[in-house]
Amino acid sequence: MNSSDYLYLDYAATTPMDPRVIDVIEKHFRETYGNPSSLHSAGQKATKLLYKSRAKIASIINAERKEIIFTSSGTEADNLALQGVAYKNRKEGNHIITSSIEHHAVENPCKELEKNGFKVTYLSVDEFGIVDLEELKEAIIPETILISIMFANNEIGTIEPIGDIGEIANENDILFHTDAVQAFGKIPIDVNRLNIDLLSVSAHKIYGPKGVGMLYMRNQGYHENGEKFIQPILFGGGHEYDMRPSTENAPGIAGFAKAAELCAKEMPEEIKRQEYLREKIIKKALETIDDSFLNGHPTQRLPNNVNLTIKYVDGESILLDLDSERIAASTGSACSSASSEPSHVLRAIGLSNRDASGSLRVSIGRFTTENEIDYFLEKLPPIIERLRRISPFKSNK
Amino acid sequence: MNSSDYLYLDYAATTPMDPRVIDVIEKHFRETYGNPSSLHSAGQKATKLLYKSRAKIASIINAERKEIIFTSSGTEADNLALQGVAYKNRKEGNHIITSSIEHHAVENPCKELEKNGFKVTYLSVDEFGIVDLEELKEAIIPETILISIMFANNEIGTIEPIGDIGEIANENDILFHTDAVQAFGKIPIDVNRLNIDLLSVSAHKIYGPKGVGMLYMRNQGYHENGEKFIQPILFGGGHEYDMRPSTENAPGIAGFAKAAELCAKEMPEEIKRQEYLREKIIKKALETIDDSFLNGHPTQRLPNNVNLTIKYVDGESILLDLDSERIAASTGSACSSASSEPSHVLRAIGLSNRDASGSLRVSIGRFTTENEIDYFLEKLPPIIERLRRISPFKSNK
Repeated sequence: MNSSDYLYLDYAATTPMDPRVIDVIEKHFRETYGNPSSLHSAGQKATKLLYKSRAKIASIINAERKEIIFTSSGTEADNLALQGVAYKNRKEGNHIITSSIEHHAVENPCKELEKNGFKVTYLSVDEFGIVDLEELKEAIIPETILISIMFANNEIGTIEPIGDIGEIANENDILFHTDAVQAFGKIPIDVNRLNIDLLSVSAHKIYGPKGVGMLYMRNQGYHENGEKFIQPILFGGGHEYDMRPSTENAPGIAGFAKAAELCAKEMPEEIKRQEYLREKIIKKALETIDDSFLNGHPTQRLPNNVNLTIKYVDGESILLDLDSERIAASTGSACSSASSEPSHVLRAIGLSNRDASGSLRVSIGRFTTENEIDYFLEKLPPIIERLRRISPFKSNK
Repeated sequence: MNSSDYLYLDYAATTPMDPRVIDVIEKHFRETYGNPSSLHSAGQKATKLLYKSRAKIASIINAERKEIIFTSSGTEADNLALQGVAYKNRKEGNHIITSSIEHHAVENPCKELEKNGFKVTYLSVDEFGIVDLEELKEAIIPETILISIMFANNEIGTIEPIGDIGEIANENDILFHTDAVQAFGKIPIDVNRLNIDLLSVSAHKIYGPKGVGMLYMRNQGYHENGEKFIQPILFGGGHEYDMRPSTENAPGIAGFAKAAELCAKEMPEEIKRQEYLREKIIKKALETIDDSFLNGHPTQRLPNNVNLTIKYVDGESILLDLDSERIAASTGSACSSASSEPSHVLRAIGLSNRDASGSLRVSIGRFTTENEIDYFLEKLPPIIERLRRISPFKSNK
């Protein structure tokens, strides 16, 4: 194990900030404090910083600069996409298609829209968490105005067939939104090749600051005929091309751009490195722990995600025991860790409540070393063994 | 003039960050990166930071810790207050009362609500920008669900009679929201004494980071009978007591708390110091520049705000000339500086379009020194003289 006294294996919940990103933000905290709406030099300096940051992020997903709308989070970006498209197009139709394994930031806006006259189809997924494309095609009706399917799942790491979904959406002239909070910065994304109209990203999942996100909007939210297909959800000053008011967080956005740039640059190497570590974790864990299996797709998965079901133990107990060894991991999504409900994602791929509650998510990242993984793989089996000895479920074995 | 080569007199648009705040954020960028929703130590460390920050800010306005809901900005807080109360209470009534001099972050949500079946009364103000309390009382009808009046105006610095408005709202059992973005940290605020139910604040106006704000919600948004009076506008994870989803920006929030704490601590001295500088600017400027007058109230005004009309010149020209002397000021609100419309605030206090367009806002702050003010007062008159010589309006003199 490396010199740090804490082993963080919960990169899917949030990432430690990259020191290179911190340096950028700190510099701009001191130097670029102006309000980009101000006419004077201090303001215009911030405007230029915003301009450059927008261009940098756009280029990474093959978008135009003006198609990037900065928000305060992935959640806000998802809400803007879903509520913004729904309320703008309610005269054209009231039907939305999504999946049954979306993050709460997509699932809950959908539930809210259902309370307000919209109909939502939640597509089922197969045992690996892959959306059924035939079911998608069948779900499309004349009233369908939006398809929202996540790029990669936050719990089980499964990467959805985004290109195929984009093609289906495109052929049917339906807007396609994808929550790419877990995918952006980890695997290549080309919004044009994949026919993506709207794409949500969060900075704090890619070694950037919390409180910064973005929504990519094809053609600035205009159909080819010049009609707008999305409206804002917050109202105020005319910031972000009239799509998202409030004084722009230029220093934070510059940090987001730096973080995105670093991810893009280091991606090919990091994919290889993390996939190697991921496979090592999966192989060793399944070898050393009886009655355990991998959740999610064996190959179509994020380079940094491992999700195991370890039978006859409670995920929360594993976490607490790992934590006392100073190892941080997760069970289910961090955003719902306060809830005691079994994960809706693990239920959707067919796990029983009991198997779902025995899940362990290990998500690695830029700062994870092989030594750390070896340390983790050494500590995990005895923890499981101990928990199983005292488990109320062991009699079921 | 002090050693800095730039004289920033636009604190109402945004403030330079206090180095003590930057230090706090930077520390937590490095140390407190966990997701507060995570069960492990890294997450719980962030949870504790949030807890402390919330308590700190609450105490400053005499609120309870749980009554503070962190948002991404003052704009978001205003939208949450207005949209959140309106949509929650539409069965009780569809009428909102506000003023004609609100910031766009209140004005534009009101306009949006008008498109969606709500009726809004925009109260007029007197020549000083003070809301007419008799007009307020007369505007109240059984359908009135919310009164939203800003604490102090961002352009002319006028402080509204918030205590009187709170009393009227309270007597009539109507919720009272105030946009305190310009007032918080500058003058004392006690939400209980003033009968305030909802209060918006932004961190970047008080030497804190951009991208952080908060909405105070009396009794966590519950009426005394246990019914909720507000609903969220973003949907996702159950953060911020189910009122505002998305991973909490713990480092930024800690910076906000530090900034608020510093303002509270230094307030008595800063009020005196800034009022002295404010009066010096007003007196000298009106003495040395003919055909100029003060906008806003002579005494009921923010300690840091000066707003002058300088006749026969264009405010934007003054700004550009000041900027070439490396002095930053403003004309009208920074958030609308891209617009060429005369300020709705200056129009509301009775200025002609021409006089409104000749406005100059000078807003000072913690780092403003008397030397800087002397430098500014030396540079301003020759600029006005030059501009008046070439002014197309001078023939009207």
